[in-house]
This record gives sequence, structure tokens and C-alpha cells, in this order.
Amino acid sequence: MVKPDLIIQGGTLLTMVEGEQPIRDATLLIQTGRIAGLLAPGDARPDFKGVQVLDATGTLVMPGLVNAHGHTAMTLFRGLADDLPLKQWLFEKIFPAEAKHLSEETVYWGALLGCLEMIASGTTTVSDGYFFQDATARAFQKAGIRALVAQGVIDFPAPGVPDPAQNLAVGKAFIERWDHVSDLIRPGLFCHSLTTCSDRTLQEAMAISRNFSLPLQVHLSETREEAEEVVRRSGERPVLHLARLGLLNQSLIAVHAVHLEDEEIRLLARHQVGIVHCPESNMKLASGTARVAEMLKKELTVGLGTDGCASNNNLDLFKEMDTAAKLGKIATLDPVSTGAATVLKMATIGGAKVLGLDKEIGTLEVGKKADITTLNIKKPHLVPLYNPLSTIVYSASGSDVRDVIVNGKVLMKDRAFTGLDAEEVMAKVREISDKIRT
Amino acid sequence: MVKPDLIIQGGTLLTMVEGEQPIRDATLLIQTGRIAGLLAPGDARPDFKGVQVLDATGTLVMPGLVNAHGHTAMTLFRGLADDLPLKQWLFEKIFPAEAKHLSEETVYWGALLGCLEMIASGTTTVSDGYFFQDATARAFQKAGIRALVAQGVIDFPAPGVPDPAQNLAVGKAFIERWDHVSDLIRPGLFCHSLTTCSDRTLQEAMAISRNFSLPLQVHLSETREEAEEVVRRSGERPVLHLARLGLLNQSLIAVHAVHLEDEEIRLLARHQVGIVHCPESNMKLASGTARVAEMLKKELTVGLGTDGCASNNNLDLFKEMDTAAKLGKIATLDPVSTGAATVLKMATIGGAKVLGLDKEIGTLEVGKKADITTLNIKKPHLVPLYNPLSTIVYSASGSDVRDVIVNGKVLMKDRAFTGLDAEEVMAKVREISDKIRT
Repeated sequence: MVKPDLIIQGGTLLTMVEGEQPIRDATLLIQTGRIAGLLAPGDARPDFKGVQVLDATGTLVMPGLVNAHGHTAMTLFRGLADDLPLKQWLFEKIFPAEAKHLSEETVYWGALLGCLEMIASGTTTVSDGYFFQDATARAFQKAGIRALVAQGVIDFPAPGVPDPAQNLAVGKAFIERWDHVSDLIRPGLFCHSLTTCSDRTLQEAMAISRNFSLPLQVHLSETREEAEEVVRRSGERPVLHLARLGLLNQSLIAVHAVHLEDEEIRLLARHQVGIVHCPESNMKLASGTARVAEMLKKELTVGLGTDGCASNNNLDLFKEMDTAAKLGKIATLDPVSTGAATVLKMATIGGAKVLGLDKEIGTLEVGKKADITTLNIKKPHLVPLYNPLSTIVYSASGSDVRDVIVNGKVLMKDRAFTGLDAEEVMAKVREISDKIRT
Repeated sequence: MVKPDLIIQGGTLLTMVEGEQPIRDATLLIQTGRIAGLLAPGDARPDFKGVQVLDATGTLVMPGLVNAHGHTAMTLFRGLADDLPLKQWLFEKIFPAEAKHLSEETVYWGALLGCLEMIASGTTTVSDGYFFQDATARAFQKAGIRALVAQGVIDFPAPGVPDPAQNLAVGKAFIERWDHVSDLIRPGLFCHSLTTCSDRTLQEAMAISRNFSLPLQVHLSETREEAEEVVRRSGERPVLHLARLGLLNQSLIAVHAVHLEDEEIRLLARHQVGIVHCPESNMKLASGTARVAEMLKKELTVGLGTDGCASNNNLDLFKEMDTAAKLGKIATLDPVSTGAATVLKMATIGGAKVLGLDKEIGTLEVGKKADITTLNIKKPHLVPLYNPLSTIVYSASGSDVRDVIVNGKVLMKDRAFTGLDAEEVMAKVREISDKIRT
């Protein structure tokens, strides 16, 4: 074999490949951004002299987490408006703040802050939908994080897109600028919802997305009111409406998917639509509880998303996994529901599948991209260790992450960022927030 | 004024006194374990030369958190058995493990591990109910944490109490050994539940508790089955049954209180019974959702508890606050319900009131005990800072705690434990867990 660029050795490896057990004292060989080899303790090992080594002793080595839905730059509004009625929160606080304060400049710094937070909590891939997405893509590229970056499409004047008649043209031009530019960044479109985008907008957005072989993200039935509005306008439930528009297919990513009837779940499953579950946002905004157990029974693919920082208020997928597991149990009154293995799959290979990236990421396998998170288990709250999956989901939080590697590059080592200047980014966002506050 | 022993200066102070705003660049003076003074930036300051100074710049300085219900030594079983049906979890996993592996020795190390975890996540007071409580009390004393330590009472053979006929005598002797021995430790009794303790046991436990002016803890209506069993046996709802037994009073601490009818909430409120809400445990075991919003409307005092590590699986009250807020919102479908201020009160002064310690702890006021937590806000996921309460509840986690002071003594400084040897404690618990695992 060719000499690796990086060796990760000494940790307990969780490949997240179905049926595989944790491998103690494993060695991962990384070469030109991919996993080139996986050695168990007894395996013969070539000469690794001179190769960069990451000593993972005392850690769990796991796939980097996949945040399947976020609005990263909304870190700018973290904690600006909480505990408010939904309409007041959105129309009096968030929308006006976005209209007034979003720009290429502010979105860039907000997205970079989100990158710091995601890297520090073990997330290596994010699916983002927002405005000023050139800025978001630049921030992700600068941070070295893997991302699906989708330009927001809404049939109202939006930040950076004052004329709604231009929303799809703006989106298409964004895709053209970023398609195949970078190994890390995939562009795309994000239609805000079925009530804020016309049928024609949704159909054209899908046509553009399919033309570029890219997924189309949409918020689906996040609130009861939204689903009811679709029924009032179209005479049919939202998923049936999407079906009639010819939009149910593997390219569609349905985010939230809280208020679904049985028939809608069946339809989504039949057409292999990807689902993103955002439990913390749904709880905080009191939107309702997605029927995740039923979705999984119907073999729907479910990823996990934090949503934006105005409705969560952090990007920690470890916390999100814990909440997803517990919310699933209390919603069904079944303690066996949504167990640790299930939600960890959602946050890794599940999210990867939803984003159409499962051939590249989501598990630790030879040939896949080297997107890797190590978790420091030598901490009081992670002792004892009976079951690594339980430890990850029910005991750990993002701050237990020790090292993060994306595309074979170490982005955080022993909790120190290798590339970004965290102090600079925090200072910039504090400056922006001083303007937002007033 | 007399010279202080310790000065905490430079942070933003949240006193948690009703109506008080955060004080920037505040100075706290600590003397013989108590808060002796509180200076705002402009106040005249005496000569503090030679006094120990804790520089709290870049932190929020807040009351130490109060974990109002735990079984601390159950850290030993963290992650041993998750995602199982309730009866299988309890009767096939937890009870047998407790029967076989609990001893003075194992409970001591398990409790010490819990202390490390609680200190590291900003908890300064815990209310514990378990067995081998001399060991727990010794561990808390060694750790320097404030605690209500209650001997478990159950009308079955229990760890350390093989003869149930002796359970109250064992409890009373425990109280006698620890009453007024230490400034930090208050002993007490913990009756397991209305279905596992006879009416007579409950009444005698209350008589003993009142005789010593100590609270009596009891698990109340944690599951629907438990409440129904009480109805089957007694012909009345659990709280009405307690009323008939003469047990509703300010000395009673009702833990969980999940399945309550309106009349039961009214009765608990009328008699000023303290409530402990354990949302993460209730979710993970799928027990149900306590009606916290209704309780607060009826002016019940509610504290927050993590419960034991077999059903949570951590002792992080920051996470617990976040979950309490979000669960309260989703349960009522009201995003205004259980806001950040409400749950932070539960985790500080609310818990203090429930434990009968609100004259000593729960807020930062001159004359109260110096139980203080500082939170490092110079981290990406805590930027920007619009509202300290939102930051604490929705964005922070226990690992953001920087320093912890109990009774005027610094237990953790810049995340380093000043007294306990964390490596030793973790190694001991790993040894014990190796035996439990087999």
C-alpha cells in the first residue's frame, strides 16, 4: 500500500457499519482525504515512519456527525428572542432582524461562528439553507467543513433577494457558481415551505435541482397551522399535494415533517423521500412531535438536524441525539423506542443518506472520506463505559469531542482549532450583535 | 467590615433574586463560608491586599445549582442497561446489580464519582436518596459538596438492610449519626414509593423526619401503573391517600409527581408540599410528563432533579434545565411555557426551597452561604450574549462551568478539581464496573 498521510491509532473504533462491533486499539490509515486502511491490533503493519500520527488512546473514534438541517449563520440571533409566542418570535423578532442585519459580511461571520461550534462538537458535515449563501459557502470552505449549501427560495422579498420573481434565477446562478468547485461544498436549493412557495416555484426548484443532480430541501408540515393552510388552499394534505405536483422522489429532503397522517408517511416512504428530524427546535417552538418511530417502521431514512440557533439554541448534535432518543420514548410512552443505536445512526449514516452522501461519508470504511470525530472518554461523566453507544447518546455532550478530521485534514486537535482564529470570529460576531441588539 | 477570605471579581453577576438585573463587573466578598458583601463597579472598596482573588472576568457568576433529587452512587450503573422495557430494566438489570454489587465500599466510590461530575457541571447541593448512606455522606463530605443525604426506606429486603422490619430503625440511626455533625451534610429519610412502603412505614418515616425537623422524600406517581396500584389498594388517588394518612405538609418532598389529577395538584399546593421534577428520567423511562405548568400556576414550589445515572445518564443540571424548558413547551404546545427564567429558578432557589434550604442557598445574597458557580462565556456556542438566562438554559452545558465554590471553598478552579483526585476515583469505579459487567 501507498504510505498514508495520517494515522489515527489507539482508540476504540465505532465504524457504524451495520452489525460491526467496536474495535479496540484500532488503527485508521488516511490517505489523500480518504480512509485507506483499518488495522486491528493483531494485523501486520507496514512501515509508518515519518507519518503524522494522531494518538487516539482514551477516545472513541467515530464517524463525524452529520447535521442534516441548519441555518448556520443564525448563530447571529442566538438568544435574541426566546420563550415567545411563535408569531411574535418570527414576525416581530427574527424576520425584522434578518431583514435589517443580514448581508454577505454578517452571514460570513455568523456561518464561521457556527463552523467553530460544529467542529468543536464533532460535526463534520452540515446541510445549510439560508440567504447570502456565497458567504456561507466561503465560510464553510474556509473552515474546511463538508456542506450542502442551499440558497433559500421564498415567494416574498428575502434577505439578498428583494425581488421574489428572481428567487429561482438567484438560486440557479448560485448553483452554477459552486457546482463542482470544491470537494467539500455542494450547492443546492432550499424552498422555505409549501405555504411560502407557490406550486410553480416548488416545481421549478425541483427541475433545477434534478438538472444538477442535487437534492432539494423543503420545510414540510413543521406546524399544525402550516399543514392546515395547505389543506385550505389545495384541498389536500401537504404530502398528497407534493405527490400531485410530482415532487415526491429521492431528490426531496423533507425537513421537520411533524404533522403527518399515516397515508403521508406511507407516501414519503414509497418515494424514498429523505426526512430530517429536528427535535430540539420542534420542542422549543412547541411545533409538535414528529412520528419518528412510525417513520422508521416504514423504513424511511431519517437524519438529525439542529435547525438554526434562533430555535435551539446550539448546534450540538450530541445533545440533539439525546433529545431525539428521549422525545421518541416519551412521545410513544415506550422506553424501547428510538434507542441509542437508532439515533446515532440518524446523526451519521442516516443523515448521509438523506443528503445523498452515503457513498462518501456516514460510516468509517475503507474508501470513504476521512470525516472522523474522537470522543474523550476519560471524564467523570463518561465513566464507567459499559456500552459506547449509550455513552455517546445519553452521557456525552459536544464538549467531550477531542479531535475532528474532515476530508483527512485535522480541523481540531485536542480541542484546539488548527485553522480558524476563534477569538477573531467571536469578536466579529460580538460587534455584529451589538448592532442587532440596539 | 472584617477582611474577606475570598474575593470573586470581574464577572457578570446573576443573583437570581426576584426582580434583580445582572450586575456587570461585580465583586463578591466571601467570609467564613458566607457572602459578606456585594460591590457594584462604582462602590468604594476596602483594602483587599493579601486576600485570595478569583478573577471571574469572562464569566457569568451565578448561584450553584441544586440537584433536588438523585441517587448519586448509581453512577456505577451508568449505561449498564438502556432502551429496555421498564420491568426488564428494573427487575432483570438494576435491582440484581444493586443487590449483588452495592456495599459501603462501592457506594463510596460511586458517590465520589458523582461528586466529581456534579462539581464539574456546577452543582453545589444535591438531595440524595439511596442505601449505604454513611458511605454517601462520607463521599459528599470528602468532596465538600452540600447535601441532603436520605437513607432509603422500602418494605422489601434492600441493599444493606436485609430485614425490612429494621428499615426505619436503620434510617433513624443514620439520622442520629449525621444530624448536626457537619455544616454541609443533612441526613434524612427517603421512602421509595407508596406501593413499596406500607401506610404505616410512610407515617412512621414522617414522624421521625418531623421529630428531627428534616424533610421526608418520596417518589410519587412516577408511572401510571404506580398511581393505579395505589388506587386499586386504597380506593383513592395517591395524593388523596397521602392526605388521609396525614402526610401532606411542608416536610414532604414529592419526587416525579408525573401522574396527578387536578385535585391532587390543588391538595399538594394547599399543603405546600415540595415537588421535584425529573424530566430527563421521566422521558428516558417513558414514565410520562409532569404537569409543571399547572403546578407553577397553583404556586407549587418545584425543584429540578437529575434522578440516578441508570435513568438519565448524567448529572448535568444545565442539560436538565434545557430539557425541562423544552419538555414543558412541547407538552403544553405553548412556546411561552417554562421559559429560561422559570427553569433556572427551579434549578436554584426552587430546589433550595424544596429542600428547606432557601434561607441558606439558592440566590447570591449577603448573608447566604457562598455556593457559587461561574460559567465561561468565551466559547463559540455561547456567543453572542443577548440574554444571560437564555445562554445558561438553552446554549450552555455543564462543561462550560469554570469555577465552583461551596461554603466559601473553591472546589474547582478553571476546571481543575482542587481537592479530589479524579484519576483515582475513575480508576476505582472502572474496577468496580469490571465486576458488575461480568
